[in-house]
Amino acid sequence: MSQTKFLLDESEIPTHWYNVVADMPNPPTPPLGPDGKPIGPEALTAIFPMSLIEQEVSAERWIAIPEPVREALNMYRPSPLIRAHRLEAALGTPARIYYKNESVSPAGSHKVNTAIPQAYYNQQAGIKRIATETGAGQWGSAMSFAGQVFGLEVRIFMVRVSYDQKPFRRSMMETWGGQVFASPSMETQTGRDVLAKDPNNQGSLGMAISEAVEEAASRQDTNYALGSVLNHVLLHQTIIGLEAKKQFAKAGDYPDMVFAPCGGGSNFGGVAFPFFADKAAGKKIRLVAVEPTSCPTLTKGTYAYDFGDTAGFTPLMKMYTLGHDFMPPGIHAGGLRYHGDSPLVSQLYHEGLIEAVAVPQLATFEAGVTFARAEGIIPAPESNHAIRACIDEALCCKQTGEKKTLFFNLSGHGHFDMASYDRYFAGQLEDFNYPEEAIHASLANLPKVG
Amino acid sequence: MSQTKFLLDESEIPTHWYNVVADMPNPPTPPLGPDGKPIGPEALTAIFPMSLIEQEVSAERWIAIPEPVREALNMYRPSPLIRAHRLEAALGTPARIYYKNESVSPAGSHKVNTAIPQAYYNQQAGIKRIATETGAGQWGSAMSFAGQVFGLEVRIFMVRVSYDQKPFRRSMMETWGGQVFASPSMETQTGRDVLAKDPNNQGSLGMAISEAVEEAASRQDTNYALGSVLNHVLLHQTIIGLEAKKQFAKAGDYPDMVFAPCGGGSNFGGVAFPFFADKAAGKKIRLVAVEPTSCPTLTKGTYAYDFGDTAGFTPLMKMYTLGHDFMPPGIHAGGLRYHGDSPLVSQLYHEGLIEAVAVPQLATFEAGVTFARAEGIIPAPESNHAIRACIDEALCCKQTGEKKTLFFNLSGHGHFDMASYDRYFAGQLEDFNYPEEAIHASLANLPKVG
Repeated sequence: MSQTKFLLDESEIPTHWYNVVADMPNPPTPPLGPDGKPIGPEALTAIFPMSLIEQEVSAERWIAIPEPVREALNMYRPSPLIRAHRLEAALGTPARIYYKNESVSPAGSHKVNTAIPQAYYNQQAGIKRIATETGAGQWGSAMSFAGQVFGLEVRIFMVRVSYDQKPFRRSMMETWGGQVFASPSMETQTGRDVLAKDPNNQGSLGMAISEAVEEAASRQDTNYALGSVLNHVLLHQTIIGLEAKKQFAKAGDYPDMVFAPCGGGSNFGGVAFPFFADKAAGKKIRLVAVEPTSCPTLTKGTYAYDFGDTAGFTPLMKMYTLGHDFMPPGIHAGGLRYHGDSPLVSQLYHEGLIEAVAVPQLATFEAGVTFARAEGIIPAPESNHAIRACIDEALCCKQTGEKKTLFFNLSGHGHFDMASYDRYFAGQLEDFNYPEEAIHASLANLPKVG
Repeated sequence: MSQTKFLLDESEIPTHWYNVVADMPNPPTPPLGPDGKPIGPEALTAIFPMSLIEQEVSAERWIAIPEPVREALNMYRPSPLIRAHRLEAALGTPARIYYKNESVSPAGSHKVNTAIPQAYYNQQAGIKRIATETGAGQWGSAMSFAGQVFGLEVRIFMVRVSYDQKPFRRSMMETWGGQVFASPSMETQTGRDVLAKDPNNQGSLGMAISEAVEEAASRQDTNYALGSVLNHVLLHQTIIGLEAKKQFAKAGDYPDMVFAPCGGGSNFGGVAFPFFADKAAGKKIRLVAVEPTSCPTLTKGTYAYDFGDTAGFTPLMKMYTLGHDFMPPGIHAGGLRYHGDSPLVSQLYHEGLIEAVAVPQLATFEAGVTFARAEGIIPAPESNHAIRACIDEALCCKQTGEKKTLFFNLSGHGHFDMASYDRYFAGQLEDFNYPEEAIHASLANLPKVG
């Protein structure tokens, strides 16, 4: 039988994270304060521990993973690299398809990879509570679990559209001891203001961030944790790509193209950055961020300074954005409903070093079902985006006869997304291409800086 | 860091199943026909392929696993053996606790281990459709997935209480192409008769079996598949215990006690039988079947010939039974709601070679939450039974200071059981000890044979 799974021993869990900043042709653009001037690390101490702030601004190529963090990651890592023989056969493609299975974490997605170090560093700093937000529920589950591992209380503002669609995500967070609120909520001034104007507001990731940041900033014992976008989050996620490189070496293969879903950017950064190191050293490889046509940040947004949240509490970050008050439609890949994108991913995209593609919703579910029927695992709707783009490339290879090696990140399972699959089968889902004029309208509200 | 996961390479997937019959002190009791006489293999050909019937009656110690079956099992096997360091620490026990993580299969439980070979043998026999039943939804999911792998249509009669509690189990089966009916259904005469008398009947595993068998027996292109009870099913599940033995050798350890949930018996048999081989050879080891107090087949039932289903379509099997018309309450560990038990497990229990214990519902959820908070994975309610018994033993070790090695089967995850966890947290679950007089009443209806 031909080998399918490329496994690593737990002693092979990486000892260091990879910091892409060391290999970028230009230094990262700095975050700006309300006055338009670069902010220093001290501006972030109200909501983050110093150890994470240091990672946020570091230019060191390798950053050591603390041993208690490796011990906790060891609960589910290293994750398998799988050769998708059955998917290849189902497609009839000469391409070789591999995927990294991040659905094996307790919370079911790659998000645990950064939740654990964030919980650890906060606990070390004497913090008792974490306030955070969640879109699809993946991040909130991960943070709830990580809080349990390191003895922190976790309070989660969950975007209402997901809260309503995914009641069992909430139960999961509660099983690990987390407290969950539908956002906009009555817990914060931000939430109360929004609800006063629009009691049926469906929420957005930007809005939930505002609520969590408000709570963290207003309490001494409470810090904030973010599941994507920031440099230290992408740093923690590089464990995925670092493991994958070891596994490709064992497989005696190497990807021509890497695909990952892209919302805030940590999924993509985590898989792609370690391969970017090779690209920076001259290796030929294409790194493709896959986003939904309903929230096409990289492919239709503008590269500009903008707030990370809806209310404008965060520093300004230079990134591809659809405007911080952009309200994406309630599509089911909740984790990809973010108006902006990681500054690091944005800068690499702006410099033409990585690629992006937007895919419509129905095609992503079609790809997910094809994958589930071939490989067994039912993917998260976010993961279906990467699968779609990878399948499209594999079908191109079928036309051309090229034997490309394709690699995508199966970032999570869809066990808490079956209602979306139900609606897909029932023909109740639709494609949504965000109208150009709506994007222009939200971009008109970008803050004026520099 | 101390080793946590004991992995096997995919080349180490067992090449043969282990047949406990070869090591039993007495031959298995034969199934009987309606006339009270032993039935021959030919009586089963209307609903099973000959290859499975041969396995059902085989006394060979080792039975080869066909290569296409090993290739399909390879999608998720070998499953990890995990040392539960964090659970040990949470309990403060000197015991060493290990668990086999069967939740890694696509359908989320050990049931796939037999669904795959059953689908394979039926496909080889030219069968186009499988009719089957499911309690908690684990078996139906497994069969739906396996049908997809080998190109069979799968029709699933799902016990109504689970159908209503677990809508997303249904979506999962449909994602893999299975068709699902709440049982009792209008699809069969059995179902129509029950519904005519009691339109709100909650169903039972025995009744759903009757529906599936009726359909299989009445169509040439359709066979039946059972997820537990029968000898060939337990045979297929021995892959769990066989892998575990290789993994314990790698760990340099060996269990003093083995715990597995016990409903129909395939979970327990799969884990325990390969260790029984050692016990038969003189090794000291205790094998403990764990059942719910609400359906206490081994601990409160009678060892007698009874039907496998409610309607009396199946041959009579000698087993521990609560009576084929026993109606268990709608507890949440749906997979353990079966009136009988595997004849092989029953015989070994009757001969005092294995043990059984019954645990109440609330204590099982309490154990499951303790496990989830320590080890991350949220277990299936069925698995919580084994966890409860294992934790109880670990707490005894804490009292006595004994450093026993304890091993349990984490047979599945609870991602589709979060509504039960919700109800547990909300204080809406209760313990249910089945009243002795109700058991006596159902036992009074046992068929008179021998």
